[in-house]
This record gives sequence, structure tokens and C-alpha cells, in this order.
Amino acid sequence: MHNLFEIDEWKVFETKFDPSKQEQAESIFSIGNGSFGQRANFEEDYSGKSLQGSYVGGVYYPDKTRVGWWKNGYPEYFAKVLNSCNWIGIRIEIDEAKLDLAKVEVRNFYRELDMKTGTLTRKFRCILADGKEIEVQSLRFCSMHNEEIAAIKYTITPINFSGNIKFTIYLDGNVINADANYDEIFWLEDTQRVGVKKGVVSSRTKKTNFLVATAMRFSFWKNDELLDIHPNCAQKSLYIDNHFEHYLEKGNSYTIKKYVSITSTLNHSEFDTVAMAINNVTAAYTGGFDILLSEHQNSWAEIWKHADIQIEGDVSAQQAIRFNIFQLFQTYTGKNPKLNIGPKGFTGEKYGGATYWDTEAYCIPFYLKTAPQEVSRQLLMYRFNQLERAIENAEKLGFKNGAALYPMVTMNGEECHNEWEITFEEIHRNGAIAFAIYNYLRHTDDWEYVQFYGRPVVFGIARFWAQRFNWSEDREKYVMLGVTGPNEYENNVNNNWYTNYIAKWCLEFALELNDKYSNNAHPLSAEEVGQFKSISSNVHFPEIAGTPIFLQQDGFLDKHLQSASEIPNNERPINQHWSWDRILRSPFIKQADVLQGIYLFEDHFSLEQIEANFDYYEPMTVHESSLSPCIHSILASKIKKEEKAYELYLRTSRLDLDDYNKEVGEGLHITSMAGTWMSIVEGMAGIRVKNDCLYLDPILPQHWQSYSFCVYFKKQPLKISIFQNKLAIENVGTANVRISYINEQIDLIPKSEKVFSIKGL
Amino acid sequence: MHNLFEIDEWKVFETKFDPSKQEQAESIFSIGNGSFGQRANFEEDYSGKSLQGSYVGGVYYPDKTRVGWWKNGYPEYFAKVLNSCNWIGIRIEIDEAKLDLAKVEVRNFYRELDMKTGTLTRKFRCILADGKEIEVQSLRFCSMHNEEIAAIKYTITPINFSGNIKFTIYLDGNVINADANYDEIFWLEDTQRVGVKKGVVSSRTKKTNFLVATAMRFSFWKNDELLDIHPNCAQKSLYIDNHFEHYLEKGNSYTIKKYVSITSTLNHSEFDTVAMAINNVTAAYTGGFDILLSEHQNSWAEIWKHADIQIEGDVSAQQAIRFNIFQLFQTYTGKNPKLNIGPKGFTGEKYGGATYWDTEAYCIPFYLKTAPQEVSRQLLMYRFNQLERAIENAEKLGFKNGAALYPMVTMNGEECHNEWEITFEEIHRNGAIAFAIYNYLRHTDDWEYVQFYGRPVVFGIARFWAQRFNWSEDREKYVMLGVTGPNEYENNVNNNWYTNYIAKWCLEFALELNDKYSNNAHPLSAEEVGQFKSISSNVHFPEIAGTPIFLQQDGFLDKHLQSASEIPNNERPINQHWSWDRILRSPFIKQADVLQGIYLFEDHFSLEQIEANFDYYEPMTVHESSLSPCIHSILASKIKKEEKAYELYLRTSRLDLDDYNKEVGEGLHITSMAGTWMSIVEGMAGIRVKNDCLYLDPILPQHWQSYSFCVYFKKQPLKISIFQNKLAIENVGTANVRISYINEQIDLIPKSEKVFSIKGL
Repeated sequence: MHNLFEIDEWKVFETKFDPSKQEQAESIFSIGNGSFGQRANFEEDYSGKSLQGSYVGGVYYPDKTRVGWWKNGYPEYFAKVLNSCNWIGIRIEIDEAKLDLAKVEVRNFYRELDMKTGTLTRKFRCILADGKEIEVQSLRFCSMHNEEIAAIKYTITPINFSGNIKFTIYLDGNVINADANYDEIFWLEDTQRVGVKKGVVSSRTKKTNFLVATAMRFSFWKNDELLDIHPNCAQKSLYIDNHFEHYLEKGNSYTIKKYVSITSTLNHSEFDTVAMAINNVTAAYTGGFDILLSEHQNSWAEIWKHADIQIEGDVSAQQAIRFNIFQLFQTYTGKNPKLNIGPKGFTGEKYGGATYWDTEAYCIPFYLKTAPQEVSRQLLMYRFNQLERAIENAEKLGFKNGAALYPMVTMNGEECHNEWEITFEEIHRNGAIAFAIYNYLRHTDDWEYVQFYGRPVVFGIARFWAQRFNWSEDREKYVMLGVTGPNEYENNVNNNWYTNYIAKWCLEFALELNDKYSNNAHPLSAEEVGQFKSISSNVHFPEIAGTPIFLQQDGFLDKHLQSASEIPNNERPINQHWSWDRILRSPFIKQADVLQGIYLFEDHFSLEQIEANFDYYEPMTVHESSLSPCIHSILASKIKKEEKAYELYLRTSRLDLDDYNKEVGEGLHITSMAGTWMSIVEGMAGIRVKNDCLYLDPILPQHWQSYSFCVYFKKQPLKISIFQNKLAIENVGTANVRISYINEQIDLIPKSEKVFSIKGL
Repeated sequence: MHNLFEIDEWKVFETKFDPSKQEQAESIFSIGNGSFGQRANFEEDYSGKSLQGSYVGGVYYPDKTRVGWWKNGYPEYFAKVLNSCNWIGIRIEIDEAKLDLAKVEVRNFYRELDMKTGTLTRKFRCILADGKEIEVQSLRFCSMHNEEIAAIKYTITPINFSGNIKFTIYLDGNVINADANYDEIFWLEDTQRVGVKKGVVSSRTKKTNFLVATAMRFSFWKNDELLDIHPNCAQKSLYIDNHFEHYLEKGNSYTIKKYVSITSTLNHSEFDTVAMAINNVTAAYTGGFDILLSEHQNSWAEIWKHADIQIEGDVSAQQAIRFNIFQLFQTYTGKNPKLNIGPKGFTGEKYGGATYWDTEAYCIPFYLKTAPQEVSRQLLMYRFNQLERAIENAEKLGFKNGAALYPMVTMNGEECHNEWEITFEEIHRNGAIAFAIYNYLRHTDDWEYVQFYGRPVVFGIARFWAQRFNWSEDREKYVMLGVTGPNEYENNVNNNWYTNYIAKWCLEFALELNDKYSNNAHPLSAEEVGQFKSISSNVHFPEIAGTPIFLQQDGFLDKHLQSASEIPNNERPINQHWSWDRILRSPFIKQADVLQGIYLFEDHFSLEQIEANFDYYEPMTVHESSLSPCIHSILASKIKKEEKAYELYLRTSRLDLDDYNKEVGEGLHITSMAGTWMSIVEGMAGIRVKNDCLYLDPILPQHWQSYSFCVYFKKQPLKISIFQNKLAIENVGTANVRISYINEQIDLIPKSEKVFSIKGL
């Protein structure tokens, strides 16, 4: 695989301007702060191919198109994440021509994302039509310290001339989505105000009525000297600017420091939103650029202290894992209970910036170990807060008595996607939400959460499953008909093994919580207890009789079974080459399905069962979901197929950096990045949590000299390092932690390190 | 069921203006001529609730909306039938106020569709604001004699005053579709020209570039005297009119005779289309209204001579069957090889006016017996002409070597619908097309057609099936995975019995044609012959072991099987009350599926098998497709469940007239009307064609005294009458026809009648 950009331990950078890579670069070099984010679009005008994207967390538009085949119970809309007010804009005009990298000769182009500090910088020279040469440098960031602040430093140096340059510093809310039907405009004008070196634009989303305010201030410097300028103000609908001409002297640097605040009614009242943006930006402007930047950098340093993974001996892997961790923390910080993690984060329009099961299945395991437990708790609370909506959603589908079906895709708790085979049938997501509560509990012992918030969620989910199974007279078993499993290359199948398995487990977990908190309000009814027991002890699971193989669903053996290696290379990925019916009929698996279940409930199965199922399914799996290879990688590590584990890890870790699927221009695969992290921590390091103990069972890829990382476990940070022949665990926390390697189990006391010598790595 | 309008043998009429029924009436009183059609919108302005609809056969717009989940191989568009230029418009203004039935007091309102003559008439009085009273009478028709002509006679009589009235006679192409996304306009301006008492508007469809021209002329009469008037002309984009004021004398009648011609590039060159409309309308105008009307009426008389069914003793049934026959002939006449039969004909926008399997499964049996065989041949040629497109369609889905998959929905041979579970999976349509060729052959002995046109179609279809089956190692049988059967309340099932059955039959039919025409060009290859034989002799058919019951699909017995009578009344129809997943999981059947197969291949099964399957499936069938009850009714007649047969017949015959499904306002269910006809002719009269003989096995519903009708068989028209205790068959043709009743078989010579006495009716 060819590298798209340059390799470095802490940076992604490019040294040449290649317009054909611009959209890819805009995604890869995106910056964000968990609250909003910005693709790496240029500050100055750019007429080349580009996907403009500025996204504000939680702000969406309910898109509806009239189609003939609307079916009863379909959600009313599909949620679109919105391209919002352009806040980066700085227009440069020299001799009446706009600076536009698509139209001038560009030299010495350098763009860098510094993941350590969360800053995007750019530097280039360009030769204008009449031979004038200028150098531009820019730096920008979305503050991780103050989630409503961003800032830009934009410097121009005339290299071989002195002369007038016109600067226009603007906010422009006249933006559209690339995926808008009929180029629909999603924003309505609210107010715009402009003053000298400041301004604000607020606009309102159609239908959803979110108010978003963007305020700016700026200052203008010659080298280190603040200049007193007198710009002209302009405004029109959804737009304000300050513009001025200035005589630039050859060899001197002239800098715009632009401060921006973005606020919305997600977090503020109607009354306060605009005022808060203005207040915020005034404070930022008053404090100054350097302070903002240093606060921002400190926040990143704090994150990295616990979240980093260091890999010795493989710079490419090192860069990749940091890129993944960096993007996850740019997307979600745990500060705001109304936010969650969209599959593309703040890097593109696709998948509507909405919440999927990715959060529970992938992101929660990541945040549980890399961040204080409050971050994961916030994600769980998000679902608790939407329990009533999940119950309403189930009611719409005909379920009763408090059964809850969480949406497949949501912005506010309502289902907001409308493919029936996904929305109505890919119900295993409900299981992942219950499992995340269980997973949180075993990491944190936060019984208070589970008792008051987790328990009702699990009960609602279990009620759904109890009603969703039906009794088959023919089999004398409970069956579950018409589902779509994690493998979305099957639709509307009967008895998906994974779904049946996690549903049965949910029923048992509900019974367990019911017993444990038998004095709490709203227990399960006696009838429910009986029903849950009866169902969970008598579920049909398809299998190949006489073998350890679990069958993905009923009828799987009717397929023409063959290895994915039979697919001609020019027909991969099949989802870009084959018709949907052909994919459905094929045995090829988009992503881990039976193996996803074995991954979650590993201890329920023998090593032989795991290996047999891995060997059966891995050859048929095409991994055309970014969520897939990591699960296979973890299981491959488990059964010590080290080469396979490493090969699968590689598929996930540089998926976006090297644009494996030729789609990175649309945005990054944020949620699957957590899977990459899991491939190392749960896969290679073999970390498991059970019986209040942290188990380790590491392998070391032969391409690496060593790797190390931190994990949180029962609130204690542990530093774990795996070398050629030793495993070192340091308790950096303040309380004992129980750890285990092979047959040895010890209580590791604070500020101590335990080293196991290991063989065979 | 309450009757929506009045009952009469030959008419549908209403005697009161009820604005709440206006959209229903607009559908029911629609008129058309196989080439274009017009909903019963008013000539004068109407500001009440209304669905404006003027549809030109074969003219469509490829609608595309951008959605996130587009899948590979999906068709590019969904075909929309277009509301076209308003040609009925006659604006009446009195004292500067427009005549608008939503705004005046209406008395003595009478609207009538005369099915015998194909005319829509309307008569009413209205009291204007200042007490002025006028009477209006209108009559209009779309000429069945000249498929590009329509005419209107519109008469006003001032009852209690003399005074000026302003007339505006116009054509208006500024029309939209009710189902347009974002109120998109589908028509682009071409030309408009206006002269004294004449004018033309032509407009062009976006994307598809159809040019449609509408030309008009008119004359103005006082009682029977042609008046010389001097109207003003006006024109604007897509609009022309003539307007004039005239002093109307109390008690006298003033009549506009408006002549219209509609032409399109479907039938004319770019160059000729506008000129042809002008020429046509000039000829019509010159000939005069009465001649046009009488030619039109004669054409209908000719149709009725052979197509009528007379029912004695049940006016409601009589009206209903005539309504169904009338609408079918209004929709399709067999004159134009480019046209076919949209599920809503020319009565609404829904289903895109496109061709479905309804044509082969329902309409061809109807036209085969009610019209000269050229009409059915034309429908078969439509598919032959699209064979190359069907091969391309299959190629898009990954099939090879001339395999043909006809589209589920088409305007021009391309698939133009985009629900994967329908488009990619409801492939049984392919079987219906092959079966129609077989059916045509047994009715007509037209071996020339079958040899040169039918055979390649059957081969293409059989090649598709051969590739679509796959070998199941597990079952050691050929299986067909991932299909949707006729019962669309199941999606993506394995081994749908009906689909497997008709596919196997197609393979056998292809082999038969290959043998029969072994000297023809392009025979099946030896490999194909071997493959077809091998597959057709070893197909898996799901069944309940040890019983005569064929199972609709694999896994059907896992369902919670129950009778549709268990569904609470307030949850019917389930497609308006239940979520899609619930419908899919339920055992409830939208329309005949296993029974559809038994209907087609009745002779392959014993009476006991037919009865057992009927008794198994009928209770679970909710008949929420208009195509369903007729098939069940025919089988009920077959197994002599006479009450059931009649009950099911009733569901179909007055479906639209009494608006059973509360949706007639959107348009009529044209194609299923053929099923109603089948319920009588194939059901009650028990007519079958086999071994070159017409078999009869009639029942007489106890509510009827007798019924009679004509059928074509081997080009000979036969008149068949069923009375209480006799069956009479008259050969009205010119050659012998073999007929059979019970065990008696005779050759009926021309101009002779055979009467069988029958018992037990």
C-alpha cells in the first residue's frame, strides 16, 4: 500500500501541493475538539476540488425525500449533519486577483498535522502572474481547553516586492451540503452584526430550529508589532466581513490572528447563544493567541499522558495508532452529555454525524481504558437519557410493556435512518448497549450507575428481546426471525447466531440485575422473570451438527460456500462491483458476525471452538466494514495466529492514512479507529477484564521491538510495556490492582512495577 | 360496504356535489383512450381539494434523489408519470369573479360516466353572490377512434338574468406533479402559438426530452347557431388562451365546443410533433363535434360487442364488472407497440405509469379472451422489443451469456424502480413473461410469433434461471436464495416455492421450444440443454413432510402461524398499521403466492392438493394487494367453495368503485381489474384452455340469475351463457371450435349453439 502522506511518529505531513489529493488531505488533516470540527480547507479562496466542511456537534437537519415506497413505521427523516458557517475565511487579494492555490504556481508547499499538539500548520510560497512572490504560513486549532473556541494565525510575507495587499476576514453562513438534495439550503438567516475587527453571524437550521452563532475578532501584526488598522465593514445575509488594504514591505511578515467562538442552542438558551459567542471570543481575543494555544497544547498533553501507545521499531505503525487515538479524542471528549460519536466525526457529511452501535461496541472499550471513567459514563448516560425514546421507538414497531429498541442511527434518541433492513432488523445494536453497561461495570465497579441508570436500560432491552423471540412449534425452540446481523451482507435472515446469542445473554443479565437489586423499585414482574428464564434456556442456535461451527444463520449451508480469495482482484471491494442481490446470496461476510459474538463472550467457548470458527469464517470475510478486521485481529491474537493478527491489524490502522478504500475524501472512519486501538490492547497485549482482575496474554509482532501504553482499570492507571522477553506492568495509581499473567495473579500496589519474563515472543 | 356513487348497469353517476369526494370522483370518472387520459377534473377553475391529472402514455421523467444508502447496481432513477398540459381548461368569469364550485352554491349537481359510450358528462346549477343563477352542462371524451383527439362541449345558460360573461379557453402547460420532490417542474418550454380560436403549446420533459404538443380549436354557439366572435389572444410561457366577453340572454344556451389534439415524440418525429397536433385538431374541428362523438361511440360499441359480461339479477355486480372492463380498454387498446399498462393507467401518478408483471399475469389473460389476438401479441412484442435491455439488466447484476432479467418496473426496458428487495429479488416476474408466451400460444396457435419472438425471450429467461439457482451441497438439490415471491410481505427468502416452481417450468419450456424448433438459428447449446435438464429435475421445493402442503419458503414453519381473523379489525389493513418488520415476521400473506403457482399450473396438482393448500393459505392471506383475491376466487371456484369464491370476487370487483382501501383518490387499480374479469371467466365459468380445447366448469353465484359473456378462442368468438340449469355456448365465429364440459367434448361449428344441462348450480 502506497503511503498517501509522509510518515512521522507524531505528525502527518506533506511537502508538495497535489490538487488531486486535496479532498483526501482535507479529511486527514481535519481538526476538532469534541464540540466542533473543521476539515482542512484553506483559509484563502480555493477554486479547486474541495469538500467544504465545518461541523457543529449535535446540530442536524431532518432530511426527507418523498419516495413511493415509504413503509409504515419508517422514521420521518434521515438526519444530515450540516456544513455550517465558514469561520476560517481569510481572503487575500493582490492586484485585484484573489489568492487561490488552484490558479497560481505553488512552491515549497508544506502542510502538517501535529498530533501531539492538535495543530494544523501550512506553509507555502506562490508566484503570482506578474512574478510577485509571497510566502504564507498558517496555524490553526480548535481549542481542546475551551470547547467553543478556535483560532488561526495567518502570516504573509512578500518575498520580492513591496505593495498593497487586500485582506478580507470574514464569516460566511451561506454554505450548502455536498449531499443536499436539489441543493437545498439548510440554514435560515438569524442575525449578523459587524464592527471594527469583529463580527458575528448566527443562523438557524430549518425544521430543527437550532441556532448556531459564530463570532470572530482579529488583530493585524507586522512582525511582532500590533498594527492599528481601520478596516471597512460589510455585511449581507448570513455574512459579515472586515476588509482593508495594507502596504506590505518586502521581507516583512504580516499576520492576521483570527479568534472564533462557535456556540449553539444545544448548550445555550435562545437568548444567550449569540451573546455567549461574543463574550467567548472577546475573552479569547483579550487573552491572546499564545495563551489559547498553550492551554490547548496542555489539554492534549494531558490526554496523551494516558492514551498514547508507543511502538518501537515501526514508525509507520506508530504514526497510525497515534492518528487513530488523536482523531477519537478530537471527536469526543466526554464533556457534553448531549454529544456522541459519529462514524465520521467532524470530518465529513456521511452517516449524518449520528450515533451508531459503534459507540458501545468499539468506542466504549477504548475510552474505558484510555480516559477517566466519567467519559464512558457520559456515553452510557446518553443512552439512559434516551430510554423513553427507545421505548417509543419499540412501541411504533408494535412492542409493549416498556420494551426498548434503541435506534440504529440517532441524533436525539429518535430513529433517523430509513432502510428497513437496517432500522427494523439490525437490532443486535440493542445487545451492544446492554453489553457496554456490563463492560463498564467490570472495569469500574460503578454499581451506583448500574443500579439507577444501567438497570432500567437493560430491563427495557431485555423486554424487547423477550417479545422479539417467538416460539417455533416446528422446532420446539425460541427463534428470532427477520433480522440483520452485524454482517450487513445478509439481510432479513432467521436466527442470526450473533443476535440470538447476545439476546439470550441480555435476558440473563437482566435476571442477574433483577436478583442483585431485588429491593429496588420497578423490578421485573414474576411473569417476566418466568418468561426470560424460559426463553433464555431454550433458544435455537444454528450450527453444523457434529462440529464446533456455529452457523451465521439458518440456511447458511445452502450457499455456494467459497473463500474470498476466489473473488477476482478487480471485483474487490465487492460492494463497489457486485449488485446487492449477488452480495446477499454470496457467502462473503462484510464484517465479523459469529466471530463478533465469540469475541464478546470469549470465555463461553473453548480455544478449539474459537479456532474452528475463526478458520471457518475468516476466509469468507471480506472486511468491507472498517469495523471488521480489528475483531478478527483480536481473535487471531487470542489463538496465537500472530502473522494473521498483524496482517489484520495493518488493514485497520492505516485505513484512512493510506486510503485503502478510496473514500477518505468523504471523511475519516472515526469509530473504527477505536477498533485499531483494541487490536493492540485487547489483541496483541491480550488484555481482558474478568473477576475483578486484569488479565494479560501478550504477543509481540516481529516487526516491532516493543510497545507500551497505559490503561485505566478500576480507576487506576497502569503502564504496560511488552518487550521481546518481558512484560512490565507499573501501577501509576493510588490503589492496589489485581493483575494476572498465565497462571500468576498478584495485587500490584501503587507506584510499583511487576515484570514477568515471557517466552515465545 | 357503502357505495361511493350511484349504481346503474351502464353508468356511474352522482347527484350531489360533495367536495370531500372530489378526488375519489376524479379517479372514478376518469376517461382515456389507451393513448392519453384525463382525471375528472373540472373544466372551469376549482380551488377545492383536487388532484389534477392529464397523462400522456409513455411519457415519463427519471426521478432521482440522492440518498446515502445507494447500492451498487441500483437503477439510476425512478420513473414518474407526468401530469401534462391542462387541455380541458375553460375559465368562466361573471362580474369579474371566476366560476369556482368551491365558492358558489351548487344545486342539481349531476356527474355521469357512461361506460357504454365512454363519455363524461356533468350538469349543475349555481347561484352566484348576487343571486344570479346559471346552468352548466359539459360533455367530454378522449376519442377511441382517433387516439390523438379529445373534445369538450361546454354549455352555459343564464337562468334568471341576461348579462356579460367572460370566457377563457386555454391550454396550460404550467403543471406540476403532486409527488414531485421539492415541487420540481418537469416540463421545459418548447413553443406556444396562439391565433383566433386556436392555439398550440408544446413542452419538453426534462432529462428524457420527450416533446409533447397540445393543440386546440374551438367554436362558440348560441343554442344551435354558430356565433362569429372575435376573441383576444394571450400567451406566456407554456400557456396560450383565447378570451372574450359575450352578452348572454336569459334562458338561452351558449356552448363552447373545444377540440384538442395531443401528440408526442413517442409517435412522431421531433419535426412533425407540433404540426401533427395542429393538423389533427384542424381535421377534428372541420369534421365537427357530432361526427367525432359518433366515431368514438362506435369504437366503444365494437369493444363491448366482444368484451361485455352481462349479469342478470345483480345490478351492483353488473356495474362493477363493466367498470373494470371499461377502464382496461380505456388504458390499453393494443394499437401502439410502445405502450403498456400502468397499474393506475391514466388515472393517477402512483406507480409511475410503468409496466409491471401485472401485464403478463393479469392483463394478457383478459385481452386474450376479450379482444382480437393482435392486442395480446402487441403486449408480448413489447417484451420482445426490450429483450436486449433485459439482457443488459441481468449483466448489471452479474449474469452472463444472454441471461435476461426483465425489469420489475419499466418505461423503456430499463429497470426504473429501486427497492432492492423488489428490483433485484422479485424475479418471479421473469417467469410470468415466459408463461404469457405459453398462454398466448395455447389460445392462438400463433407459432410464427413463438418461433421468432417468443423463443428468444424464453431462452433468455431460462438462462437467467439456470444461473440464478445454485447447488446446495448440504441438500444435494438446486436452491434459489434471496428472492421475494409474489407475496411481498416476505423479502429476501430462500426457496420461495412459487419462484422455484415457475423457474423450473421455464427451463422445461425452453427445452421444449428448443426441441420443437431444432433447426432454427441460435438454439440452446448442448451444455445449456444438459444444465437445464439437470437443474429442472433436481430443484428443492419446501413442503410439510407427509402432507400435501407446499411451503411458501424455507423456514415458514418457524413463524407463529395464525389466521388473519386474529388480527383486530382496527389493525387492518396491516400495511397501514404495522411496522414493516412485524409484517415480514408475521405469517400473513399479502397476495396469492403458493396459490398463484397452483393457479398457473393447476393440472400439475390433484384436487386434494389444491384444496389442502387453499385451506392452509387462504386463512393467512390478508389480500392487501388488489391482485390477490381474484386468484383465490378462481381456486375457490375450482374446488367448488362457491360462497368463498363469491365473497372473494366481491372484494375485487368494487374495490375502486366503493374505495375499499381508502386510496382511490390517488387513482384506480387498473391492472387488477383484469383479475376481476378472470374471477368470473376463469373462476365462476371455470374456463380453461388445454389440448386445443376450451373447457368449461361453471358455477352460478346464488345472487345471480344468469351471466353471459364472449370469449375469443383460436380466433373464434364464442358467446357463453350460464343459467340456473344450463350452459349455452354459441360459436359466433367462422371456424370449428373444440369445447368440453365435464366428460363431453365436441367440435362446435360456426353459427351453432350447444346447450349443456347442468346440475347443482
